[in-house]
Amino acid sequence: MALVFLNGRFINREDAKVDIEDRGYQFGDGIYEVIRIYNGKMFTVKEHLQRLIESAEKIKLTITYSIEELEEILGNLVRENRLKLGIVYIQMTRGVSARNHLFPSDEKTTIVAYTKELNRPFESIKQGVKVKLVEDIRWLKCEIKSLNLLPNIMARQSASEEGCYEAIFHRGSAITEGSASNICIVKNGVVLTHPANNLILNGISRQVVLKKCMEQNIDVDETTFTIDELFDADEAFLTSTTSEVMPILEVEGRKIGKGLVGNISKKLQAAFEAEINVQCMAHV
Amino acid sequence: MALVFLNGRFINREDAKVDIEDRGYQFGDGIYEVIRIYNGKMFTVKEHLQRLIESAEKIKLTITYSIEELEEILGNLVRENRLKLGIVYIQMTRGVSARNHLFPSDEKTTIVAYTKELNRPFESIKQGVKVKLVEDIRWLKCEIKSLNLLPNIMARQSASEEGCYEAIFHRGSAITEGSASNICIVKNGVVLTHPANNLILNGISRQVVLKKCMEQNIDVDETTFTIDELFDADEAFLTSTTSEVMPILEVEGRKIGKGLVGNISKKLQAAFEAEINVQCMAHV
Repeated sequence: MALVFLNGRFINREDAKVDIEDRGYQFGDGIYEVIRIYNGKMFTVKEHLQRLIESAEKIKLTITYSIEELEEILGNLVRENRLKLGIVYIQMTRGVSARNHLFPSDEKTTIVAYTKELNRPFESIKQGVKVKLVEDIRWLKCEIKSLNLLPNIMARQSASEEGCYEAIFHRGSAITEGSASNICIVKNGVVLTHPANNLILNGISRQVVLKKCMEQNIDVDETTFTIDELFDADEAFLTSTTSEVMPILEVEGRKIGKGLVGNISKKLQAAFEAEINVQCMAHV
Repeated sequence: MALVFLNGRFINREDAKVDIEDRGYQFGDGIYEVIRIYNGKMFTVKEHLQRLIESAEKIKLTITYSIEELEEILGNLVRENRLKLGIVYIQMTRGVSARNHLFPSDEKTTIVAYTKELNRPFESIKQGVKVKLVEDIRWLKCEIKSLNLLPNIMARQSASEEGCYEAIFHRGSAITEGSASNICIVKNGVVLTHPANNLILNGISRQVVLKKCMEQNIDVDETTFTIDELFDADEAFLTSTTSEVMPILEVEGRKIGKGLVGNISKKLQAAFEAEINVQCMAHV
């Protein structure tokens, strides 16, 4: 029986319930993170927890835990649940209170964390995936990793129904990001990706990949690119905690580049793998 | 002890809990309605339930109940809880499922409904209120009454912190609606309000008021009006289930018209009151 962390206590999964007037349930009034577990260790955990705290600040949610305390809680959860390969999910909401748009005066943040086994998507990473374009109708604070995910799930569902791995949002002609991932294209050896502003979630995997580009002397341009530039790209790939560096071979039925996993994509996959090894596979 | 309706059963309020992997809690993947109770009777209940079903269709959520069945459930809840004056809240989500953006294959809608005592805001209705302008950064499907309400609560909170009753959204120069209400202005005897498109929630109280305008030969123009037109209006008022017809006397510290409750506002308040009497106060 897996344990769940709920408001300071480790409890059985089946007991992990929240009140119907938790503001997360009625308003999506909360934030979250998903952290990858490799070899029983958390990958880029500090970066995720730092972003969690930044998301909290942006919605004025009180977090009474430090990054170090949160890391210890999640680490304990992973250990207790003997999780080797999977994810740990952590969510915070503005707590339970009689329904009212206004913040509760006696705000008491609800914190939930649990683990899940999840294999790595080796086959897709090797073979690449197809994606669909979806108009980006989301709000203008996409930099917050909030629980308001209805447009994301609607987009992902519509992509899946057309046999696609991911939905890629475009705001007018500008590509922003995936429903649960960032997107990069490669043109003439340069990696292009949307700037980390209010129109995208600045993914931790995106940041890892951009850092790897620097280390490998691959030029990066954080700039807006268009649908046409995506179609004309030499390579394209998604980045996310669970998708890692995921090559895109087809967009709306049109092949990207030669329709094969490109060389820079492969280089970055290898560099990503090396980072996993450094952080999680090293012998203690 | 008040009763709550949860997935087909009437249970005690304190037992009304949902799983941490209810999609309402993790994605805001659901819809809701708030229905006013006057004299123990539901006001405009069919209109609210019709809209609930339309919201469900727009997010592809399965509702296995008919409007008549839902009306009976809510009616029973109001009666059992001996509620005379208040609201009944009903929410539906895409149920409990291991977290995944994709819709669950075994979707089982979670339905929650509960009642709350709530007085009418007589004093504000008589004296009028102040409002604040807030940039409308919401998604482009505001016509869905969904649980993705983070921009709404942030706006309302910021308004309240400046002593304002409501936040009024504007998209660029165009006024759209309040954080939890619609807005009308009156200019030269004509009532103007944003068209019922994807940029606003087509409020039931808004619809009641527009119908009353028709009945009273007050001209209505469902058109976009600007911030400047709001400032220059003769009268302005909010409409909502809990605010009814709520006069706006001040916007961002500037008086609207003479800074008094206007004549058309008063006429529509009286007409709204008459509609409450017809629907809820009549002797059976």
